[in-house]
Amino acid sequence: MQNADSAYEALSARLERAMAAQTALTLFEWDNETLAPRQAGELTARVQGALSTAYQEAMTGEGMKELLDACRKEKLDEIPAAIVREAADEYERLACIPPEEYRAFQELVAKSTRVWAQVKQEQDFEQFAPTLEKIIDFQKRFAGYRAKPGQKLYDVMLDEYEKGFDMEALDGFFGLLRDELVPFFKEVTRSGCQPENGFLRGDYPEEKQQELVEYMAEYVGFDFERGVLAVSAHPFTTNLHNRDVRLTTHYSDRVDSSLFSVIHEAGHGIYEQGIDDELTQTLLGQGASMGMHESQSRFFENILGRSAAFWVPVYPKLQELFPQQLSGVSREEFVRAVNRVEPGLIRTEADELSYSLHVLVRYELEKQLIEENLEVSRLPQLWADKYEEYLGVRPANAAEGVLQDIHWAQGSFGYFPSYALGSAFGAQMLHGMRSELDIDALLEAGDLSPIREYLRSHIHRWGKRKTSRELLREMTGEDFNPSYYVEYLKEKYGSLCRTRS
Amino acid sequence: MQNADSAYEALSARLERAMAAQTALTLFEWDNETLAPRQAGELTARVQGALSTAYQEAMTGEGMKELLDACRKEKLDEIPAAIVREAADEYERLACIPPEEYRAFQELVAKSTRVWAQVKQEQDFEQFAPTLEKIIDFQKRFAGYRAKPGQKLYDVMLDEYEKGFDMEALDGFFGLLRDELVPFFKEVTRSGCQPENGFLRGDYPEEKQQELVEYMAEYVGFDFERGVLAVSAHPFTTNLHNRDVRLTTHYSDRVDSSLFSVIHEAGHGIYEQGIDDELTQTLLGQGASMGMHESQSRFFENILGRSAAFWVPVYPKLQELFPQQLSGVSREEFVRAVNRVEPGLIRTEADELSYSLHVLVRYELEKQLIEENLEVSRLPQLWADKYEEYLGVRPANAAEGVLQDIHWAQGSFGYFPSYALGSAFGAQMLHGMRSELDIDALLEAGDLSPIREYLRSHIHRWGKRKTSRELLREMTGEDFNPSYYVEYLKEKYGSLCRTRS
Repeated sequence: MQNADSAYEALSARLERAMAAQTALTLFEWDNETLAPRQAGELTARVQGALSTAYQEAMTGEGMKELLDACRKEKLDEIPAAIVREAADEYERLACIPPEEYRAFQELVAKSTRVWAQVKQEQDFEQFAPTLEKIIDFQKRFAGYRAKPGQKLYDVMLDEYEKGFDMEALDGFFGLLRDELVPFFKEVTRSGCQPENGFLRGDYPEEKQQELVEYMAEYVGFDFERGVLAVSAHPFTTNLHNRDVRLTTHYSDRVDSSLFSVIHEAGHGIYEQGIDDELTQTLLGQGASMGMHESQSRFFENILGRSAAFWVPVYPKLQELFPQQLSGVSREEFVRAVNRVEPGLIRTEADELSYSLHVLVRYELEKQLIEENLEVSRLPQLWADKYEEYLGVRPANAAEGVLQDIHWAQGSFGYFPSYALGSAFGAQMLHGMRSELDIDALLEAGDLSPIREYLRSHIHRWGKRKTSRELLREMTGEDFNPSYYVEYLKEKYGSLCRTRS
Repeated sequence: MQNADSAYEALSARLERAMAAQTALTLFEWDNETLAPRQAGELTARVQGALSTAYQEAMTGEGMKELLDACRKEKLDEIPAAIVREAADEYERLACIPPEEYRAFQELVAKSTRVWAQVKQEQDFEQFAPTLEKIIDFQKRFAGYRAKPGQKLYDVMLDEYEKGFDMEALDGFFGLLRDELVPFFKEVTRSGCQPENGFLRGDYPEEKQQELVEYMAEYVGFDFERGVLAVSAHPFTTNLHNRDVRLTTHYSDRVDSSLFSVIHEAGHGIYEQGIDDELTQTLLGQGASMGMHESQSRFFENILGRSAAFWVPVYPKLQELFPQQLSGVSREEFVRAVNRVEPGLIRTEADELSYSLHVLVRYELEKQLIEENLEVSRLPQLWADKYEEYLGVRPANAAEGVLQDIHWAQGSFGYFPSYALGSAFGAQMLHGMRSELDIDALLEAGDLSPIREYLRSHIHRWGKRKTSRELLREMTGEDFNPSYYVEYLKEKYGSLCRTRS
C-alpha cells in the first residue's frame, strides 16, 4: 500500500511540473495577444519552446509509462483515477509521435500561419495549397499513430475535440441541419422580413463601449475578482486556473460586435470560473470539451443574450450610455435588429440561424480531405459550390471563402464540428432547463443567478470529470438530440419573422 | 575535444531551461503587479513555486557540479567562459544552503512582507521585531555558508549586489558623504533659497499625464518597439529579454512624480534594451550590478532630467499639455521647482541632494545589525537619531521611519548601498563623458542619442561581462572616485541656490 500511494504521489509531482509549464505557456500566449511589444516575438518564442519541452518532458519523459502503469494498479478514488486516465490519454497522444516528426510539424505550423495570413491578404489560395497539403499529410500520419485498430483517421481527429461524436454521429447531426435548416434559412431570408439594423453601426465611442462591455460581462455573471478583461485583435478567453480567467474584446463602429462578443466570451469565462476548486490546476480542471465550451458561450450570447426577455432590464442601460444613437430605438426594434438573419460568407459574422450551415460546409470538406483524399486544389471550387447551395451566396475570392479561418493553417482538423455541436447542446439544455426554471421570467427580472447556478451544478463544476455527452445526458435526462436545436431555431426565427410583418 | 565541446553544450541546454523558468517567473511577477485579478494570488503562487523549483533544479540539480567542473577544464572563448563563471557563482549561491532551510526562509519572507505591510499601517515596529530578528538570523547563516575563509558576513552580503565594494570601500565612500554632504545639505536648506513648487501639484488629468509619460519615455530613448509601459502601485522596470523591456508608472496629483519616475524607469529600460544580442537570454544578459543599474536610472532622471538644458526643447511640450497649470510658469521656475531641496523623512521622495544621506543611515545600521549584533529593538531609536543628525528631521512614528522600506522584510541586506553608489557612478560618468561630449549643447538641441550611444557602448552593451567597477574604470579611465559625486552636487546646488537669490 505504501508503494501504491507513492506512485500516485510521484505522478502528482510530475503533473504539478507539467501544470506549471502549461500555465506559464498560457500566460505567454495571453501576453503576446494583448500586450507584448512588437519585436519580442522571436526571443519569447525560445522561452515558449523551452517551456513546451518541459511540459512534454514532464508528461512523457523517462519513467512516465511505468508510473502510469503503477498508478493504474492502485485503488484510487474517483478523481485521482480520472486524473490518471487523463494523464495516460495525454501520454498516448504525445508519446506516439516520433519527436523529430513532431518538431518538423511544429515548425511547419509556425510558418504556415504566417503564410496563411499573407496569402489571405493576397487572396491567393494556390500559393497556400502546397503548405496545406503538407499539414494534412502530417495530421493523417499522426492520427494513424493514435488510431485504434480499424478506426478511421477523421474519427481519430474528431475524438480529440469531442469524445463520443464520430462521423456516424455527425453525419446524422449535420444531415438533419442540411435537411431542416437549409430550406428554413432560405424561407426566412426570402420572406423579406429583414429588420432595420443600421443604427447598430455609428459613432459608438470606445470609452462608452468599454463601460458597456464591463457592465455586461458582470451582469451575466463574470466575476472580476477572479478575472480580467483586456483588448486584443480577435476576442478570446483563456485561464490560468479557476481564479484567474481572462477575456478579451475588441472595439469597432458596430456596437453589437463588442456587446455580443463579450457576452460570448463571458460565457466561456463563467464556465472556467465555475470549475470546482478540487479540479483546478489538475488535468480535469478545464471544460469538458470544445463543444461543451462553445455551448456555454453561445448559450449566453444567443439563447440568453439575443432573447427579448434578456433586454427588458438591460436595454435602458444601453440607451443611457448611447442616448444619441438609441433613444429613438425601441427595445423591440433593438432585439429584432440583433437577430437579423442574412446570407453571409463569413462564419464569425454569421447570425445565429445560419451559423451552423457555415460549419456544415467545413465538416463535409474536412471529411472529404481526410477520408476521400480530396485534392486540396479543388477546395475553393467546392467551398464556393457548397456556400451557394446552403447559404445562397458565392465568395468572390479565397479570402472570403476557403481562406477565411486560421484553423486548417494551425493543423486543426476535426475542430469545426464542435462549434455547431455546442449550439445544439445549448438548445437541448434550454429545453431541459425550462422544466425547472422559468427562464424568461428570470431574465425579465434581471436575475440570472438561478440559470448560472443550474449550469454550474450540472456542467461547469465537473470540469473534465465527465464527457460532454455524459453531462448532457445527466442534465437533460436524454442522449444528445439535435432536434431541440432545429425546433429552437424554427420557433424563434419563425416567430420573429411573424412579429415583423 | 568532442567531450569538451559537449560539456558546454550540455550546460547550455540546462541554462536554457533555467532561463525559460526565470523568464516565466518574471512575466508572472509583472502580471501580478499590473493586471492579475485580486483572487488569483494563492493558486498562481503554486505555479510560481513550481517554476522556482524548476529553476533551482536546472541550476543545482544532479550532475550540475560535474558539468561545471568539466566546462572549466575546456578551452572556451571569453563569453562562454564568463557564462560558466556566472553559472558556477549561481550554483554556489544556491547549492550551499540546505534545501529545507531555504524553504523555511522563503516561507518566512512570504509571511514577513505581509506582516510588514500590516505593521507599517499600524506604525508598530515592536510587532515586527521578532520577524526581523529571524530574517537577520537566516541571512547571517546563509552568508556564513557562502563566506570565504576570513570573510566578514556583511561583506558577503554586499558582494551579492555590488562586486568589489566591501565595507572597507563603502566606509570610505559613506564617510566622504557624511563629512561633505551632511554640512552642505544643511547649508543649502538653511539658506532659505527654497523655490516655489506648489504648481507641480494640482489638477493634472490622468490621460494627459499618460500622454506626457509616453512622450518622455520615448524622448529619452526608450524603444516602444521593444518595450511597453503599464500602471502599477509602485513604479518598476523588468524585462523578459532585450526586446521585451517593461516599465510601469503611477499617477497622482503631483505631475513631477509620474514625470521623473518614468524618466528614471526609462533609464533602467534603456540599459536593458542596450544589452548585446549575443548576451540576452544568457546569464550575462542583465545589468552589471544593482548599483550600475541605478546609476543609469538616476543619470537619466537627475543628471539629465533635472538639468536646465534638458528642458529647453521639452518644456514647451509640457506647457502645451497643461496650459492652465503651466502657461504662467517660466522654464527657469520649473527647473528650480523640480530641484527643490528639503529635509525629508522618506527615501523614495527625497531630492537628489539628500538622497544618499537616507542611504547612509541604512548602511550604518545594516553594518551594526550584521557585524555588531545590534539589537533589533534598538533600531527605531537609532534610526531617528541618525535622521536627526544627518537630515535634521525626526520621524514621528515607525511608518515614516524604520518601517518605510520593504527591503529588510524581503531579506535584502546589503542592497541599500547600491542606490548611493549608483548616484556616485553617474556623476563620475558625467565627468568622463564631458571630455568627449558637450552634454548641455546636446540636451539643448534635443539630441540625446550621442549620450545614449556613449552609455550603450561603454556600459549597456556589456551586460554582466564586466563588473561595475571594471566598466567604470574603462569608461572614465580611473577607479571609482566618489569625489566627482560630491563636486557635482556642490556645484549644481550651490549654483541653483545662487541663481535663486
